[in-house]
Amino acid sequence: MSLRRAKVLRLPTAGPQDTAPLAAAIAGGAVDPATIVAIVGKTEGNGCVNDFTRGYATLALKLLLAETLGVPLKEIEQRVAIVMSGGTEGGLSPHLLVFCREEAKEAPAASGPRLAIGIGLTRAFAPEEIGRAAQIEETAAAVTLAMRDAGIASRADVHFVQIKCPLLTKERIEEAARRGASVATADTYHSMALSRGASALGVGLALGEIAAAPEEAVCRDWSLFSGVASTSAGVELLRNEIVVLGNAPGWSGDLVIGHEVMRDAIDAEAARRVLAGLGGETVAVLAKAEAAPGGEIRGRRHTMLDDSDIHSTRHARALVGGVLAGVIGDTLLYVSGGAEHQGPAGGGPVAIIARV
Amino acid sequence: MSLRRAKVLRLPTAGPQDTAPLAAAIAGGAVDPATIVAIVGKTEGNGCVNDFTRGYATLALKLLLAETLGVPLKEIEQRVAIVMSGGTEGGLSPHLLVFCREEAKEAPAASGPRLAIGIGLTRAFAPEEIGRAAQIEETAAAVTLAMRDAGIASRADVHFVQIKCPLLTKERIEEAARRGASVATADTYHSMALSRGASALGVGLALGEIAAAPEEAVCRDWSLFSGVASTSAGVELLRNEIVVLGNAPGWSGDLVIGHEVMRDAIDAEAARRVLAGLGGETVAVLAKAEAAPGGEIRGRRHTMLDDSDIHSTRHARALVGGVLAGVIGDTLLYVSGGAEHQGPAGGGPVAIIARV
Amino acid sequence: MSLRRAKVLRLPTAGPQDTAPLAAAIAGGAVDPATIVAIVGKTEGNGCVNDFTRGYATLALKLLLAETLGVPLKEIEQRVAIVMSGGTEGGLSPHLLVFCREEAKEAPAASGPRLAIGIGLTRAFAPEEIGRAAQIEETAAAVTLAMRDAGIASRADVHFVQIKCPLLTKERIEEAARRGASVATADTYHSMALSRGASALGVGLALGEIAAAPEEAVCRDWSLFSGVASTSAGVELLRNEIVVLGNAPGWSGDLVIGHEVMRDAIDAEAARRVLAGLGGETVAVLAKAEAAPGGEIRGRRHTMLDDSDIHSTRHARALVGGVLAGVIGDTLLYVSGGAEHQGPAGGGPVAIIARV
Amino acid sequence: MSLRRAKVLRLPTAGPQDTAPLAAAIAGGAVDPATIVAIVGKTEGNGCVNDFTRGYATLALKLLLAETLGVPLKEIEQRVAIVMSGGTEGGLSPHLLVFCREEAKEAPAASGPRLAIGIGLTRAFAPEEIGRAAQIEETAAAVTLAMRDAGIASRADVHFVQIKCPLLTKERIEEAARRGASVATADTYHSMALSRGASALGVGLALGEIAAAPEEAVCRDWSLFSGVASTSAGVELLRNEIVVLGNAPGWSGDLVIGHEVMRDAIDAEAARRVLAGLGGETVAVLAKAEAAPGGEIRGRRHTMLDDSDIHSTRHARALVGGVLAGVIGDTLLYVSGGAEHQGPAGGGPVAIIARV
Repeated sequence: MSLRRAKVLRLPTAGPQDTAPLAAAIAGGAVDPATIVAIVGKTEGNGCVNDFTRGYATLALKLLLAETLGVPLKEIEQRVAIVMSGGTEGGLSPHLLVFCREEAKEAPAASGPRLAIGIGLTRAFAPEEIGRAAQIEETAAAVTLAMRDAGIASRADVHFVQIKCPLLTKERIEEAARRGASVATADTYHSMALSRGASALGVGLALGEIAAAPEEAVCRDWSLFSGVASTSAGVELLRNEIVVLGNAPGWSGDLVIGHEVMRDAIDAEAARRVLAGLGGETVAVLAKAEAAPGGEIRGRRHTMLDDSDIHSTRHARALVGGVLAGVIGDTLLYVSGGAEHQGPAGGGPVAIIARV
Repeated sequence: MSLRRAKVLRLPTAGPQDTAPLAAAIAGGAVDPATIVAIVGKTEGNGCVNDFTRGYATLALKLLLAETLGVPLKEIEQRVAIVMSGGTEGGLSPHLLVFCREEAKEAPAASGPRLAIGIGLTRAFAPEEIGRAAQIEETAAAVTLAMRDAGIASRADVHFVQIKCPLLTKERIEEAARRGASVATADTYHSMALSRGASALGVGLALGEIAAAPEEAVCRDWSLFSGVASTSAGVELLRNEIVVLGNAPGWSGDLVIGHEVMRDAIDAEAARRVLAGLGGETVAVLAKAEAAPGGEIRGRRHTMLDDSDIHSTRHARALVGGVLAGVIGDTLLYVSGGAEHQGPAGGGPVAIIARV
Repeated sequence: MSLRRAKVLRLPTAGPQDTAPLAAAIAGGAVDPATIVAIVGKTEGNGCVNDFTRGYATLALKLLLAETLGVPLKEIEQRVAIVMSGGTEGGLSPHLLVFCREEAKEAPAASGPRLAIGIGLTRAFAPEEIGRAAQIEETAAAVTLAMRDAGIASRADVHFVQIKCPLLTKERIEEAARRGASVATADTYHSMALSRGASALGVGLALGEIAAAPEEAVCRDWSLFSGVASTSAGVELLRNEIVVLGNAPGWSGDLVIGHEVMRDAIDAEAARRVLAGLGGETVAVLAKAEAAPGGEIRGRRHTMLDDSDIHSTRHARALVGGVLAGVIGDTLLYVSGGAEHQGPAGGGPVAIIARV
Repeated sequence: MSLRRAKVLRLPTAGPQDTAPLAAAIAGGAVDPATIVAIVGKTEGNGCVNDFTRGYATLALKLLLAETLGVPLKEIEQRVAIVMSGGTEGGLSPHLLVFCREEAKEAPAASGPRLAIGIGLTRAFAPEEIGRAAQIEETAAAVTLAMRDAGIASRADVHFVQIKCPLLTKERIEEAARRGASVATADTYHSMALSRGASALGVGLALGEIAAAPEEAVCRDWSLFSGVASTSAGVELLRNEIVVLGNAPGWSGDLVIGHEVMRDAIDAEAARRVLAGLGGETVAVLAKAEAAPGGEIRGRRHTMLDDSDIHSTRHARALVGGVLAGVIGDTLLYVSGGAEHQGPAGGGPVAIIARV
């Protein structure tokens, strides 16, 4: 494998439709669109069922990339994993993180391993496999392959695993039923949680964070979790798309990544430890947030789960965004909700990419 | 003036109607209801126009105090300033801060001044005075008297001034009109901002934080502000009720207060400075929050002011609550929205009471 | 049984705390507070979990009645069934319906039966009985007794049965667990639906609308329903409180009641039929609303169930309120959400009281 | 002018991105994309500031039309007026109304005038003209030309005038300032109301509904209004785009249009009159909705303007949608919010297109 270099652009956006900053970066030569392997972003929606900003941003990005690369819209889906997370509650600021893999001309940095990006794919899942053992196991296998793709040898060098996973729709459930197969849930909204949860358990299995991940544990046994998984369910795919971020030799450049697990939503200390461990200038921050299911944070009652006006995931993103902004001094933070088996109940992973 | 002692109880509540913790504190002898001069609290409402949790909590507290003190409901209003702030967004946890002034039997603490509580009242305002020079000046005068009531000699020893101020209603506007007087605004909601703003400017004037506070500056010139004012408008009164918190000799006990001005919503450093300055165990945290009117925090776009689903004050409380929880390690925080002239635009005061 | 007369006052309110209209009606002699048996009202809350306007209005009403009747607050709960329904979406206008039973001096109306009000109570339910057979059967028995209390001989003369029923709380579930009993659901919010559903099935059973109401059908078999039940769960009671409204001889006055079942949310024809059947001036309108669980109204997709910003019950009340306001020409309508087994899926009962 | 025929397709959609029904109609020959002159639709957003579903739906439609017509994306904007209205509150069902102008081969209907569609454009407005006399007058002139384009001779034959108009942005305000010009408002959100209002007054002027429309009246004098105007502000244009719908000779087919003015939000009688006047099968319903600014509907308090959780325009659409669904028996209704000078305060026009 030849020498590679990871590039990460963090681009503030003026709305879900705003591709101008990326277009300018491409036009100005800051990024070669052919090297883009993933785009992860925050948009202004509610991050819940009726959040159309994710699809809107994704369509706008695909249009731009198709045009600049001169390829059909459909091909972009094959080339780039686009993961939009809705919800910029509190101070969170809409932005895109553009991940590129370039061929490096210079020699690798002398000072050690550098940010490495690995890509993985599972096979397409049948509806009845979503949220179940097949999804857990195939994800685990694909994460292992994505680590290899990144050239990351040790599990300890993996610091964030972003996964886009499928969900159940009425049509998919009916298709399964016609074949006599029954799905994990008839509730399409709940299928998102199950798919996220199973995918996260697959990460934990691949990285040895958990010894076993039985199907029965999905969205039930919160003691099982991965400290680096960040999973997001979308209607537009049937397989799991995996982006592994870690540090590895064979990568040049000046970017490194680190992470810690926030044990609860206000665990600012975890973010401080990551910062202290990395040094350098912060280039990107990625974290997961959720309302503690027990209704308390360090023994204090929270009201997120009883609020019928604002969904608990919105409260949780605002809260974790505030905690991290207080530490980082910046609101350009990728804080995503729905953290099933991604960190402990009420907590979640926080990863930082820094320029050293 | 005899030796006094300030007592502050921080009581988590299970809802706006929940007076059981205070009833238990009274029953158990932890607090003598006759010594209570102010109750400041957070309730689960939206903190906006149709927030009825403030009135509900206030009514429940009045009922409890009337019963335990054996006085009519109406008398409670004369004895105790009750300021309920709606909105426990993000991780904020509903609770009451009960402020008591007791006669102290022991000698004052040898180590220096202690938490002092001063109470002040303006005269009742005519509708046409609300949000205008009269309210600014009368408030300034009453703050000065409240400082004297607390025995606080130096303005630098004042760390938080909680004010409850009146607002305009349709009836009050019409009453003024019948007398040929015109009010500052016909928009009753906006009158809340004007009343809060004028009251805050009055604090700034009294404490010498600003040299002059012309009527024209109210809710217009954000360069004028107090770093310790926290004002809240309510329909149930016509005068300003003032609670001054500071440190003074002549007070015994083990409580002290400090404050800093958050220059923006994510200024965690301000809270860290207060903590460092005080030492000891945190007993209460009081802060103000607002969405930066310019639409940016440290150059990053925020979406609070363009969100038609969630009011900007709700976002702001969640955000500042997260920032402070990350520093303090606790979500039992009094974070109140609507910070006109209370700290700089987008920022606000944060005060901490500690047991030393 | 001596001759009786039902009186119904419809009083617009200025907020959940507003008891002034009822106080004025009492002071003016329009109503003797000792004759009030039930108060049913709409308040401005969200009608969901964190709706504190119901409790606030209830407390305010109890305070007024305790004061005017010169009895302790607690006694009011024994005398008057107070059912507040939160949510005045769309054009719905906050108001109280005050139901009184008076001794009539005049002879009964010559023209036929008149509005009759019957009151019933079940025994207190153990937590494990809520949402189950015991609640169904005890409710059915109590409805039969309430019919007798009203002097309504025929089931066809019952036109609205308002029930207030208990729900599960964490404490109640734990109490049951200590006795080795398991409850119908561990989800306290869902327990409200089960309690409403079981109570509605009890009404259907009592009135012969359904032949059997097995426990397994609760919130599952929507083909079983009552066309006159309106049930509401509240935390403050353990038994079911029942108000039966119908027409009966032995009642004088000029009020009559009629009802129809709206087959879906836009079934304005049902309301028109009630109006046409009754004639006279409309005095009160009571209806139930819910989002069609299948996601469609007459084959058209609705978006109520996928909206994460506004709860589906809020949409449903706004919609049914609009449909009925278009027919009645008035927005002073009691439209309540959560219509499990109260009318067909997506529909519900609409009852009108008229002065003839 | 040769013989023409108006075609109107009403296509339910599964989301803002859903162009499949229109694609199928084109593929199946039901509509020739080259004949489409306007698309008016309802999407699931909140209809307020942060509603991105409008832009998303518009982009998706442009992509489809550009592809099927084989023209660049930009050209679609020149050919087709696309007006998306966000907000399907209550029972409102997302859908598109596709308006086509075809050359007719058959002779015109013997029975009288038929649905006629006229298109008009103003010149681009300078920022300082928006919401002012220039916009009023240019709109009036363009409406007159659009009537002529439709071949509508009499003002009484105009039944709905849909206008898409510009708004102010920070950039536009600054551009004007650089030229020394001052705009009507510095509040970009308020500029939408001013632009809608000025455009509606322009319609009223053109149709002789009002004798004069002084600039000072915009969003101030609610006694001035058009009974057929429906205006919508969008960021993507600088001129007013006008679609006039009426009945005219010279048009064949089986469609006719009628309208009435709802005097308030619950004026179902207005819709019943339109239905009675037209007869036939309802093909499309277009109406405007707003919360009565006085806070009352027929003397009853409404809570729409005091609700800080749900914007008043959302309540108003849900309400009017319910009123109309009760009359029409269908929820596929184009009910749009923001009715400044479009019908009387609290009311608005309702137009129906029917197949006779």
